[in-house]
Amino acid sequence: MNIAVRWMGTPLGSVVMRQTRLELERIRAARGVIDPVFLGSPLFESGALGARLGCTVQVKLEMANPVRSFKGRGTELVADGLVRGGERRVVCASAGNLGLALAWSARRRGVEVAVVASRFAPEVKLDGIRALGARLELVDGDHELARERAVGIAQYDGIRLLEDSLDIETCEGAGTIGLELVESGVAFDVVLVALGGGAMATGIGQVLKELAPGVEVVCVQPEGAPAMTRSWRERRVVSTESAKTIADGVAGRFPIAEVLSDLLVVADDAVLVREESIVEGVRMMLHDAGLVVEPSAALGIAAMLEDPERFAGRRVVTVVCGGNVDMDSYYRWIA
Amino acid sequence: MNIAVRWMGTPLGSVVMRQTRLELERIRAARGVIDPVFLGSPLFESGALGARLGCTVQVKLEMANPVRSFKGRGTELVADGLVRGGERRVVCASAGNLGLALAWSARRRGVEVAVVASRFAPEVKLDGIRALGARLELVDGDHELARERAVGIAQYDGIRLLEDSLDIETCEGAGTIGLELVESGVAFDVVLVALGGGAMATGIGQVLKELAPGVEVVCVQPEGAPAMTRSWRERRVVSTESAKTIADGVAGRFPIAEVLSDLLVVADDAVLVREESIVEGVRMMLHDAGLVVEPSAALGIAAMLEDPERFAGRRVVTVVCGGNVDMDSYYRWIA
Repeated sequence: MNIAVRWMGTPLGSVVMRQTRLELERIRAARGVIDPVFLGSPLFESGALGARLGCTVQVKLEMANPVRSFKGRGTELVADGLVRGGERRVVCASAGNLGLALAWSARRRGVEVAVVASRFAPEVKLDGIRALGARLELVDGDHELARERAVGIAQYDGIRLLEDSLDIETCEGAGTIGLELVESGVAFDVVLVALGGGAMATGIGQVLKELAPGVEVVCVQPEGAPAMTRSWRERRVVSTESAKTIADGVAGRFPIAEVLSDLLVVADDAVLVREESIVEGVRMMLHDAGLVVEPSAALGIAAMLEDPERFAGRRVVTVVCGGNVDMDSYYRWIA
Repeated sequence: MNIAVRWMGTPLGSVVMRQTRLELERIRAARGVIDPVFLGSPLFESGALGARLGCTVQVKLEMANPVRSFKGRGTELVADGLVRGGERRVVCASAGNLGLALAWSARRRGVEVAVVASRFAPEVKLDGIRALGARLELVDGDHELARERAVGIAQYDGIRLLEDSLDIETCEGAGTIGLELVESGVAFDVVLVALGGGAMATGIGQVLKELAPGVEVVCVQPEGAPAMTRSWRERRVVSTESAKTIADGVAGRFPIAEVLSDLLVVADDAVLVREESIVEGVRMMLHDAGLVVEPSAALGIAAMLEDPERFAGRRVVTVVCGGNVDMDSYYRWIA
C-alpha cells in the first residue's frame, strides 16, 4: 500500500510514495474472516496508570480472548486461507503465543498443527498448545533455533510454514487493532507497540499512517533483545548474538528484511527499555490497573517510565498484547 | 414487561403472564445512551477453567473499562436521565462500585455526586470515587447504614437519590449484558450471576427469559450475606441481622420488595456459597484465567466448585462483574 509521505505537514500525495507489503483494504476485509472473539477488544482509560505516569493512558486490551494474546487475529486469517486453499497441515515456530493462537484457529477448522518452540518458553504457553491438540516439538535453544527447525519440518513434510511477521496475514491481522483504535472515537497522540518480529508494529502502524497520520507510532523493545530496533535505526538488518529478556514474546535475534522495510515506513520511532523497567511495568499493570500481563505487554509502560518528559500530558495508547505468564515467574516479578 | 410462563415446555402466551418492572425495549434503547466503553464486553472461553471445572466456561468480562465493574452500564442511564431532567446533583449509597461508576458518568456530564459508603469498603473503590471528584462520606457501619444516610442527604438537600436495584436504570443497564450474551452467537445452557441487591440478576434474567428462555439463570450469593437468596426461596422479604463476607460488593441485608418480585419471575435458582469457595474462585481466576477479580466476581466459580455435578458437561457463562480489590487483601487470598 502506498503511504503519502508528509513534508512540513503537507501531504505530497503521489509525488513521494513509499511502499509496504500491507494493504488497508485487506486489513478491513480481515474483520469479516477473524472470529469475533478476537475483535473489538476493550479500549479504556486507566485513571490510576495515568495519574502515576503523568499522562492519559488508554489500554487496548488484547488478552480477553481464548488464547490471551492478539495473535488470534493473524492466525484466523492463516487458518482460513489454508482451508480455502485445500491445505490441512501447517507448522510454525513460536515463542508460545503464535502457536497457541494457531492451534486454536486450526482446531476448529480441522487443520493439523505442529508448533516448534524453545523448551525455555513459559509452561503456560506450551501447556496451552498441547491442550488445544497441536503437536508440540521443543528445541534445546532459543526462538531462532525453533525457526530453523520449523523450516526443516515444513520442507520434509511438504506442509505450509507459517512465519510470524513475514507472512502478511500476521501483520494484517494485527492491523485490525489499528482499525479499532481509529474507529473508537477516542482521541490519542501516541501509540506504544511492543516490537518483536514486527507483525504487530507494522500492522497497527500501517493503519495509523494511512488513517491517522498525526498519531505517533512508537515501537518498544527490550534492551536485551534489540535486533529489530537496531535494524530500524541503522536502516539495515542487524542481528544479535543473543537475546536475553524476560519479555519472551519479543526475544528474536534475526530481523526479517521485508518486515524491516515496512517498519521503516510506518514506525515513527523505536526505543529500547531496561529489564527493570519492564518488571516495574508488569507490577504497575497489576497494582494500578488490576491486569496480569506478560512482560511483552508491559513494554509500553516501561517506555513511559523511562522517558516521562516525552509523554507528559499526552494521550497515550498502550497495546496490552498478551497475558500468558507462568505464575512462579510472575510472583517473583511482583514481589 | 410480560413474561410468558412456560408450562410443560409450552408457552402459554397471554393466558398466564407475570409482570416485572423491566422492559426489553428500554434495555435495547439503553445501548444508544450508554458510553460504548461499557458495552460489548469480552465473552470468551477459558479452556483452563473449563478443564478444571469439568464444563465449558465462558467468561463475560465486565471489568475491562474505566471503572472496572459492570455498574457503568446503569450509571450511564442514570446520569443521562438527570441531565435530560435538568437535575445537576445526585447522591447514592454504595459498596464502592456503584459510587465509582456514578462518579465517572456524572463527571463528564457536569453532574455533582455525593457517595455514602462504609468506611470498611475497599480503599481502591473509595480512592477511585475521590479521584473522580465525587464527595465521599463514610459511615461507621455497613452498607445498610450508608443507605440510610444517603436517604437523609437526599431529603435534606432535596436532590436525587439513586437506589441500586430499586431504580430501574440500574437493572436495565445491567440488562444490556443479557442482550450481548444472546446476540453473541455463543451457545450456553446456564448463566451464573452474582446476587446482591438484584440489579444485575434481574437485568440479565429479564433478557434471557424473554429471548433465550431455555437458558437457566442461577443467582449466586455468599452464605455470609444470604438475605436476597433466602427471600427468593421464601418468596417474601427476609432480612438478616448481619452480613459477613469478603464479597463486599454483594453484602446487603435488606432486600427490596420490588426487586425480589422481579427476581422471582426471572431467576431459575438462587444458591449460597461458602467463603472458602469464594477465595478458591478468586485464586482459580488468577491462576487459570489470569484475571484479577474481586470476590463478588468469583461467586460463579464458587458455585461450580460446590456443585460440580450440576454443571458437569454444561456450557456455563459466568459474569465477572468487577475487579476492584485492595492488593493487601488480594495477596492474602491468593497466598
